[in-house]
Amino acid sequence: MKATIERATLLKGLSHVQSVVERRNTIPILSNVLIEASAEGQLRLMATDLDLQINESIAAAVDQPGATTVSAHTLFDIARKLPEGAQVSLSAADGRMAIVAGRARFSLGTLPRDDFPVIAEGELPTTFELPAETLKQIIDKTRFAISTEETRYYLNGIFLHLQDDVLKAAATDGHRLARVTVAKPEGIEAMPDVIVPRKCIAELRKLLDEVDGSVGVSLSATKIRFDLGPAVLTSKLIDGTFPDYSRVIPTGNDKILKIDPKSFMQGVDRVSTIATEKTRAVKMALDRDRITLSVTSPENGTAAEEVPGEYVAAPFEIGFNSRYLMDILGQIDTDLVEIHLADAAAPTLIRENDKAPALYVLMPMRV
Amino acid sequence: MKATIERATLLKGLSHVQSVVERRNTIPILSNVLIEASAEGQLRLMATDLDLQINESIAAAVDQPGATTVSAHTLFDIARKLPEGAQVSLSAADGRMAIVAGRARFSLGTLPRDDFPVIAEGELPTTFELPAETLKQIIDKTRFAISTEETRYYLNGIFLHLQDDVLKAAATDGHRLARVTVAKPEGIEAMPDVIVPRKCIAELRKLLDEVDGSVGVSLSATKIRFDLGPAVLTSKLIDGTFPDYSRVIPTGNDKILKIDPKSFMQGVDRVSTIATEKTRAVKMALDRDRITLSVTSPENGTAAEEVPGEYVAAPFEIGFNSRYLMDILGQIDTDLVEIHLADAAAPTLIRENDKAPALYVLMPMRV
Repeated sequence: MKATIERATLLKGLSHVQSVVERRNTIPILSNVLIEASAEGQLRLMATDLDLQINESIAAAVDQPGATTVSAHTLFDIARKLPEGAQVSLSAADGRMAIVAGRARFSLGTLPRDDFPVIAEGELPTTFELPAETLKQIIDKTRFAISTEETRYYLNGIFLHLQDDVLKAAATDGHRLARVTVAKPEGIEAMPDVIVPRKCIAELRKLLDEVDGSVGVSLSATKIRFDLGPAVLTSKLIDGTFPDYSRVIPTGNDKILKIDPKSFMQGVDRVSTIATEKTRAVKMALDRDRITLSVTSPENGTAAEEVPGEYVAAPFEIGFNSRYLMDILGQIDTDLVEIHLADAAAPTLIRENDKAPALYVLMPMRV
Repeated sequence: MKATIERATLLKGLSHVQSVVERRNTIPILSNVLIEASAEGQLRLMATDLDLQINESIAAAVDQPGATTVSAHTLFDIARKLPEGAQVSLSAADGRMAIVAGRARFSLGTLPRDDFPVIAEGELPTTFELPAETLKQIIDKTRFAISTEETRYYLNGIFLHLQDDVLKAAATDGHRLARVTVAKPEGIEAMPDVIVPRKCIAELRKLLDEVDGSVGVSLSATKIRFDLGPAVLTSKLIDGTFPDYSRVIPTGNDKILKIDPKSFMQGVDRVSTIATEKTRAVKMALDRDRITLSVTSPENGTAAEEVPGEYVAAPFEIGFNSRYLMDILGQIDTDLVEIHLADAAAPTLIRENDKAPALYVLMPMRV
């Protein structure tokens, strides 16, 4: 294999693929990036952690087609440190890859390309397109609620499913739930319910920043592929059953608070300065358009702030985890947010309005 | 105590003093900032870790003079989160301090001001002024060489001493030495040799960014005070003997390399990509104007780069810790640096030229 490539092009490609590679690997080849030079003047970069795989094609001058694998992080670090505008020559032979740029030359050990594990996609019968903007919205408005508890592995991702003729995306950690609804794209009709793992979501989101237009999505019950132009992301899906979250979305909450999400969030942020790291509990007292946020900490002291809001139902008090509340409020783009409350122990519904694609459910805390 | 103060003024003052306060303290009052409101419309903020003390005066409208102490980090976090332009009212009574700004109100527990430990400065007979720029230069060009090894506590600071009618500042960790020489300021004649601890250096350096003009320095054999206008920093000095470092500054190194520090440093940075985290060793082979940098790592591979330089002495090879070498090269402001070598085991002298105020000594590594 022998190819020459512009340093900036190589760096960009490697920056995408290296972030899939885990820092520590018990299987040596998983630390490597597969580099395949084709006669058509393409360099294909590929990396995997056995659950997630990225493929990126970049333009190169190929002198001799071929393929090998080298340490992804080392090659990325080298590309990063090479001078801007440098032409980088990559050539592999006899278990080594030589990297030459200007007066600098490197030799890295390689592992055979045939040992590189490729995720067998199998058939991906469901195929549709989603605008990159829609996909960004789905991710941004739900990912914060993804559980990090490994024992509840079926909550470690975003659940995608068809219901009521729309595509729904949901994430929950048992304390809060986020759900986004988008119009059903063409070709999605027979889509099985799937849970897309957190790491795939994180890598996808990074790549979406460089994508305009649409993203191709193909999936089966076990695999999903995102086609983002030069980069293709393939991931195993989480093999589990996402709970029937619709049961926790309250429908009869009759105490409605309408409030400016920005000043509400700033108030929560301020009073929670006093909250202990452990509980982060903030109390909200509602009394006829007067909303009082407060925190009492035996160690730190007390804090209270009144925020204006529209509220006419019976006065009562409720507590929330301030971090969770702020996560949700940070997703609200409108000037007014609706908070549907029932009582101090019941799940609370938060949404921009009844037409908004996103809704959030937050469990209260005893305060 | 009762005073009102502009949020930005309070925040700036607190940002200076809170960084002296350690995150964890076994003595509760050390977590607190002393706030003293004087009838002259001044708020004095003070924090200490028992070795280092900061004092800052800020303008405030004082309704009732008095003093108390509250948690420095909590008060700082509150000030940070208050809206821009807010007027903050502070009032203390009955073991609590109330902080009110707009619709937000906080109550923090206080501890009596009389329990607040103050570093007794004693007499500071040596007093002189140093331009802030000179002090910055002294710190920037030496602090990277300060040892972090606690067992060699006498190396955990910058050594200031008078010698040959100039003021010298030196730091070393046994592997490298940095020394800066500046003209002797007036009033310094009887200065004892002192070692200024690393934390004092770090806080001083941060404060210097906001100072123009001169800094007043007062010291005895055990304490030092830096007067930076509104802020005054007082520190205990390290009670130990700094080694006679002049013995390790080589004078007879006759192999002179003259090289562009920037391309040299970039070359070292690139080849060291391959070096293992543990050794970071880079080899330098000198042969008649041809300087070859190289790294060989059994795990990662090899790297080599030729950098142009002026060298006419006998060819030889020498190894350095790449991080240490880059630390020094990063301090060189000229286009050419002189590297005075003897042999592969002898300390190497690095300086801009024989008139430069700074010089560096680097111990080689076996490679």
